[in-house]
Amino acid sequence: MAKKYDVIAIGRACIDLNAVEYNRPMEETMTFSKYVGGSPANIVIGAAKLGLSVGFIGKIPDDQHGNFIKRYMADAGVDTDGMVIDQEGHKSGLTFTEIKSPEECSILMYRDEVADLYLRPEEVSAEYIKQATNLVVSGTALSKSPSREAVLKAIAIAKANEVRVIFELDYRPYTWTNAEEVSIYYSLAARQADIIIGTRDEFDMLENRQGGDNNATVAELFKYSPQLIVIKHGVEGSYAYERDGKVTRGYAYKSNVLKTFGAGDSYAAAFITALHAGKGVEDALKYGSAAAAIVVSKHSSSEAMPTIEAIEQIMSEQAATYGS
Amino acid sequence: MAKKYDVIAIGRACIDLNAVEYNRPMEETMTFSKYVGGSPANIVIGAAKLGLSVGFIGKIPDDQHGNFIKRYMADAGVDTDGMVIDQEGHKSGLTFTEIKSPEECSILMYRDEVADLYLRPEEVSAEYIKQATNLVVSGTALSKSPSREAVLKAIAIAKANEVRVIFELDYRPYTWTNAEEVSIYYSLAARQADIIIGTRDEFDMLENRQGGDNNATVAELFKYSPQLIVIKHGVEGSYAYERDGKVTRGYAYKSNVLKTFGAGDSYAAAFITALHAGKGVEDALKYGSAAAAIVVSKHSSSEAMPTIEAIEQIMSEQAATYGS
Amino acid sequence: MAKKYDVIAIGRACIDLNAVEYNRPMEETMTFSKYVGGSPANIVIGAAKLGLSVGFIGKIPDDQHGNFIKRYMADAGVDTDGMVIDQEGHKSGLTFTEIKSPEECSILMYRDEVADLYLRPEEVSAEYIKQATNLVVSGTALSKSPSREAVLKAIAIAKANEVRVIFELDYRPYTWTNAEEVSIYYSLAARQADIIIGTRDEFDMLENRQGGDNNATVAELFKYSPQLIVIKHGVEGSYAYERDGKVTRGYAYKSNVLKTFGAGDSYAAAFITALHAGKGVEDALKYGSAAAAIVVSKHSSSEAMPTIEAIEQIMSEQAATYGS
Amino acid sequence: MAKKYDVIAIGRACIDLNAVEYNRPMEETMTFSKYVGGSPANIVIGAAKLGLSVGFIGKIPDDQHGNFIKRYMADAGVDTDGMVIDQEGHKSGLTFTEIKSPEECSILMYRDEVADLYLRPEEVSAEYIKQATNLVVSGTALSKSPSREAVLKAIAIAKANEVRVIFELDYRPYTWTNAEEVSIYYSLAARQADIIIGTRDEFDMLENRQGGDNNATVAELFKYSPQLIVIKHGVEGSYAYERDGKVTRGYAYKSNVLKTFGAGDSYAAAFITALHAGKGVEDALKYGSAAAAIVVSKHSSSEAMPTIEAIEQIMSEQAATYGS
Repeated sequence: MAKKYDVIAIGRACIDLNAVEYNRPMEETMTFSKYVGGSPANIVIGAAKLGLSVGFIGKIPDDQHGNFIKRYMADAGVDTDGMVIDQEGHKSGLTFTEIKSPEECSILMYRDEVADLYLRPEEVSAEYIKQATNLVVSGTALSKSPSREAVLKAIAIAKANEVRVIFELDYRPYTWTNAEEVSIYYSLAARQADIIIGTRDEFDMLENRQGGDNNATVAELFKYSPQLIVIKHGVEGSYAYERDGKVTRGYAYKSNVLKTFGAGDSYAAAFITALHAGKGVEDALKYGSAAAAIVVSKHSSSEAMPTIEAIEQIMSEQAATYGS
Repeated sequence: MAKKYDVIAIGRACIDLNAVEYNRPMEETMTFSKYVGGSPANIVIGAAKLGLSVGFIGKIPDDQHGNFIKRYMADAGVDTDGMVIDQEGHKSGLTFTEIKSPEECSILMYRDEVADLYLRPEEVSAEYIKQATNLVVSGTALSKSPSREAVLKAIAIAKANEVRVIFELDYRPYTWTNAEEVSIYYSLAARQADIIIGTRDEFDMLENRQGGDNNATVAELFKYSPQLIVIKHGVEGSYAYERDGKVTRGYAYKSNVLKTFGAGDSYAAAFITALHAGKGVEDALKYGSAAAAIVVSKHSSSEAMPTIEAIEQIMSEQAATYGS
Repeated sequence: MAKKYDVIAIGRACIDLNAVEYNRPMEETMTFSKYVGGSPANIVIGAAKLGLSVGFIGKIPDDQHGNFIKRYMADAGVDTDGMVIDQEGHKSGLTFTEIKSPEECSILMYRDEVADLYLRPEEVSAEYIKQATNLVVSGTALSKSPSREAVLKAIAIAKANEVRVIFELDYRPYTWTNAEEVSIYYSLAARQADIIIGTRDEFDMLENRQGGDNNATVAELFKYSPQLIVIKHGVEGSYAYERDGKVTRGYAYKSNVLKTFGAGDSYAAAFITALHAGKGVEDALKYGSAAAAIVVSKHSSSEAMPTIEAIEQIMSEQAATYGS
Repeated sequence: MAKKYDVIAIGRACIDLNAVEYNRPMEETMTFSKYVGGSPANIVIGAAKLGLSVGFIGKIPDDQHGNFIKRYMADAGVDTDGMVIDQEGHKSGLTFTEIKSPEECSILMYRDEVADLYLRPEEVSAEYIKQATNLVVSGTALSKSPSREAVLKAIAIAKANEVRVIFELDYRPYTWTNAEEVSIYYSLAARQADIIIGTRDEFDMLENRQGGDNNATVAELFKYSPQLIVIKHGVEGSYAYERDGKVTRGYAYKSNVLKTFGAGDSYAAAFITALHAGKGVEDALKYGSAAAAIVVSKHSSSEAMPTIEAIEQIMSEQAATYGS
C-alpha cells in the first residue's frame, strides 16, 4: 500500500537571519535576510524540491514569524497538517549568521522559550505518522521537555507501524543541560532508529566521549535497530556503514564556498531522497555531497535547496575528479 | 562471581509523618510520628530486614531530615555509599498520613522541589551498580528531570552489566505533567526491565488507557526484555506472568488492617527476597502477600517491615485457609 | 466612626510541627505536634485572645492543612473573610522545631512554592482593609512575588484610608534572593509604616549593614511616615523610639524558658493590643514582654497565646523585680 | 559643583530590526536593518547627539549583539562604565518592525530571558549615579526582578543624593504579570520621581483604570515628589503640568511620517535636553515635538536622532503654523 507521504520530519521550523553583507563579523553586519531555517524544516523543504511528498510536525508561534514559516513551507510543497500553532506566547527560534569568510561563520541563536520545544506529545498524531514511509527525527527536538516526549512518542508510533525512522543527530549545544543528558536521549533514539546520520563529533556526543572510533560506534549501535549509519568527517568525506558489514566512503564535491551552514541539511535531504528512490548507498552519498556543494555556495539554507537536475549536473561534471 | 549487593534500589528516601491518633481525619490529627518513607527506601529496608545485602542510590537534603534518613537506613543495614547529599537547599519529600479507618487513609504529600528528584545522572556510579545482582527502579523517580535521566542511566548501566532490572511502577500522581508523559517513560523503562511489579491501575498508566487487559499487557511487554510481570488486583490478589506463558495467581492473607499504605513496598521487598533466595514464583507471591498483611496491621511502612520468621509464621498459620 | 476590626494582619498562616520530645536534636525527635503558625497568624490569634476584633488576609492551601488552619483561626476568633483558598496546588509552609535546650532550638522550614507567597494583589480587598483600625504587615510576605505586590497594595490601601500600618519586620532568610533585595523592600514598607517593630538584626537587614546604631536608624526612618519604632535587643530588652524624641526602654520578665520561638509574635500581639487599648508606650512594652515570657515557657506559639489576665498577673507579680 | 554627567539612564539597550522594505506586512518583509534600540538607550543616544554629557546603566549580552550595542553607544558619545556584561547566557531583547503604512506599524518583540531584565541591584553603583544631574528611569525596567530592584535601588540612590529623577513611563505589555503589578510599581516609582513623562494610556496603567482624567492624575501625584508631569495625547499634542498649577499645552509639528515608533524617545531626549539647558517648559515641549517630527520621518529610532540644528530648523520653519 502506497503511503501518502514519503517523508515526515518532526522538530523545529525557525527563522534564519542571514548576513546580507559579506566578509565582516556579525557586529558589523547591518542587514539580515529572513529565511525559514531549522534542520528538519530544511530537510523536508529540500526533499520536496527534489520531488518527494513530505509533511512536517512541529510547533510554530502565533505571530508574524510563525505565519511566514507556515506559508513558506506550504508554498515549498510541505504538508502542514501536522504543524501546531502555539497558544502560550512562545516565539520562533532565530539564527543570526555572519558571512565572515568561507571558513569562519559564527552564528548567534535565540533558543530560549522557543515554540518548537513546546510541542507536546498529545499534539503528535499517530494517524499522521502512519501515512509516512520515513520519519525524520532531529536530535535538537530531544533537548527539552515536552518536545522531547513528543519525539519519543513519534518514534514509538513509527516503530509500531513500520515507518522507517531516520535520526539526524543535529546536535546543537543549546538547551541541553549537560553531556550525560545528550548521551542518554541520543542513545534512546539511536537504538530505535533504522538510519542514523551525523558527524563524528555528534556520534561522540551520543557516546559521551571524545575521539570515538567509527567501528566501535557502529558495532554498538548495530546491536539494536539501525541498519545504516552515516558518519561524516567534514572535508575528509563520510562513511556509510551497513548492518551486513559493508562500508562505503563518500567524498565531497568541489564548490565555491560562501558559507558552511546548511550543508548538513541539504546533504540529508538529497541522501534520503536518493535512498527513497531506490538508489544504492554509494549513489545516495553522492547525491548528498552534491547537494551540500550547491548549498554552501548560496546565501541561504532553505531557499537554496537544489533541484535534482542541479545535483545531477554536478555529479556528471565532476565525475572525473570525484575522489581525487 | 558473587556480587557485593543482592539488591540496590534507586529513587526516593523521604519522611513519613504518620498520624498518631486513630479514627480521625487529618484535619483533626494533632500528632505525627516520623519514619523513613518512600517506596524504594522501604523496599531495601525491608529486604535488609529479610537478610539481603542491600544498597541505595538517591539524593537527600543537607538538613536534619536528611541526617535522620541516612542514619536510619545505615542502622537498618542499608549501604549508603550511593546516597548523595544535596547542596542546593532542596528538602526531603514528606508524606503526612491520617488513619481514619482501615478503608480510608488519605495522604498529603510534599513533593515540590524535593531533593530526591534532583539526583543527576553524573551522580550515579556505574561501578556501584555493577556490584549488584538486582537493581530496583521506582517509577516515581522517572517523573522529573534530572532524576529521570539518572534512572535511565542506571538502567543502561544495569543492562550493560547483567544486573537484573526490577521495575516497581510506584505511580504517584505528583510531579508528572500528564498521562502521555507517564506512559512514554514507563514504557521506556518497562521494555528494558527483567521484572515488572505494579497494580492493574499502574499498568493502565503505563499503557495510557483505562480498563486494560492483563493478557494484552503482558503480550506487548514480552516482546521486549521482561521475563516476569506481576499485576496486582487489590483484594482479588495478584497474577504473575512468565515469559514462557505460565500464570500464577497470588492471594491475600487475612490481616487486622490498621491502614493500607506501605503494603506494596513490603510486598515487593518480600517477593524480591524470596525470588533471590531461589524460591519459585508461587512461593514468592506468598512471601509478598504475607509481608503486606503484616505491614498493614502496623503503624509505619519502614519500621514495620517484618522478619522472615514473622512472614513464615503467617504462611504456616494461614495455610489452611489460603485461597479460600 | 468605629471600625469593624481593630487589627487585620496580612501574610502567612502556616503549620508548626513542634517537637514532642524535649532535650534532643531534631534528628532524634520522633513525634511532632501540629499547630497553626506563622508570625502574622500568631499575632492576630494572640490579639483575638486578648480581646481585639481581628481579621486575616492570606492564602492557604486547598488541602487538609489548609482546612485545619482556617478552622483553627475561625475558632480562635479571627475573621477569615480575607483568606483565599489556593487553586494551583501550592502547599502550606511548614516549620519543624526541636526543643534541644532553652538556648538551642533549631528549626527546619519548608517554604518552597508555599501557598502564602502566591497571594495576588487582586485578591486583596480594599473594602476589607478599610474596615480596620490597624493593618499588621509581615516582612516575610514581601520576600517574593506575587505576595510582595499584594502587601505593597495593602499598604497603599491602608495609607489612602487612614488605616494605621504596623510593620513587623519578621525577617526569615528563606525565599529572599539577596541582602540588597531585603533592604529595598523593607525600606519601601518601613517608610510607609506608622509603627515598626523588629530586632536590631532585622533593622540591620533593612539597612543592608551590620552593627547598625539605633539612633541613626530611627533618625533616617522618622524622615518618613513612622511615628513609633521598637527595636528589640534580646535579653537586654527593647527600646521604643517616638517621633518626638522620647525613648522608652522595655525589660524582659523572668520566665521558665522551654524554647525561644513564638516570643516575638506574642510580644507584638500584646504590645499592639495595649496600644490599641490606649495604654502608653511604657505599659505596652510591659504587656509585650510579659506575653513573651509566657509563650517561651509553653510548647507552642499560637495555642500558647496568653490571656490579658495571665499577662497582668505576671506584670503584677514581677513588678518589684522589674528592671532589676 | 558641576556633575560629570548631565543625564544617566537606566534600563534596556537592545536591538531593533527594522523592515527594509516599505508598505508590506512583516510576513512579507524579507530584509531587516539592525539598530540599537530600547527607550532609555535611545534617550541617551539622542541626548548625546544634542550635546549632553550622558551615561548608561544596563546589562547587555556577552555576544555579537552585545558587542555591537556597547560599541555603538560608545561611538555615539555615551559613557558605558555602568554597562554590565551578562555572564549567564541571556540574550539581547529584539524588536522586529514592519513599515506597512504610516498609521500601521506592528512590531514583534523578543523579551523572554533578556539580559537587560537581569541587571541586579548590586550591579548598580551609587558612586556612578551620584555624578549625574538627572537619572532617567524607564518603566519597562520595573517589569521583572531583579531589574526591578536595580531600578528601585537607583531611584533611592538618586533621591538620597539630589539627583533629579525623570520617570519615562515607557509601558510595554511584555513581561508584566498583570495590571495590578504595573500600577503598584509605576506608583512607587512615580511618587519618588521629580519629572514624569508618558502618554495618557500609560498614566491609565499607572492608575489601573481606563479613561483617566489629567487633572485627577496630577492632583494625586503632586501629593508626592513630582514637580512636572507631561501627559501626551498623540496627535492632539501634550500637556505639561507643574506643581504650582501652571499648565502648558504642546503641539505636534507636521512631518512626512514614515513610521510611528521612536517618536517618544526622541521627544524625551529633546525635552530633557532643553530643560537641562534652562529652557522653559513651553520651549522644551517644542523641542520634544520637533525631535519627534524628525524621527518619525526616518527609518530608525537611535540612528535618526536629530541634532539641535535640525530641531531648531523645524521650530523656525513651522513657527507660523504652530498650533494652527
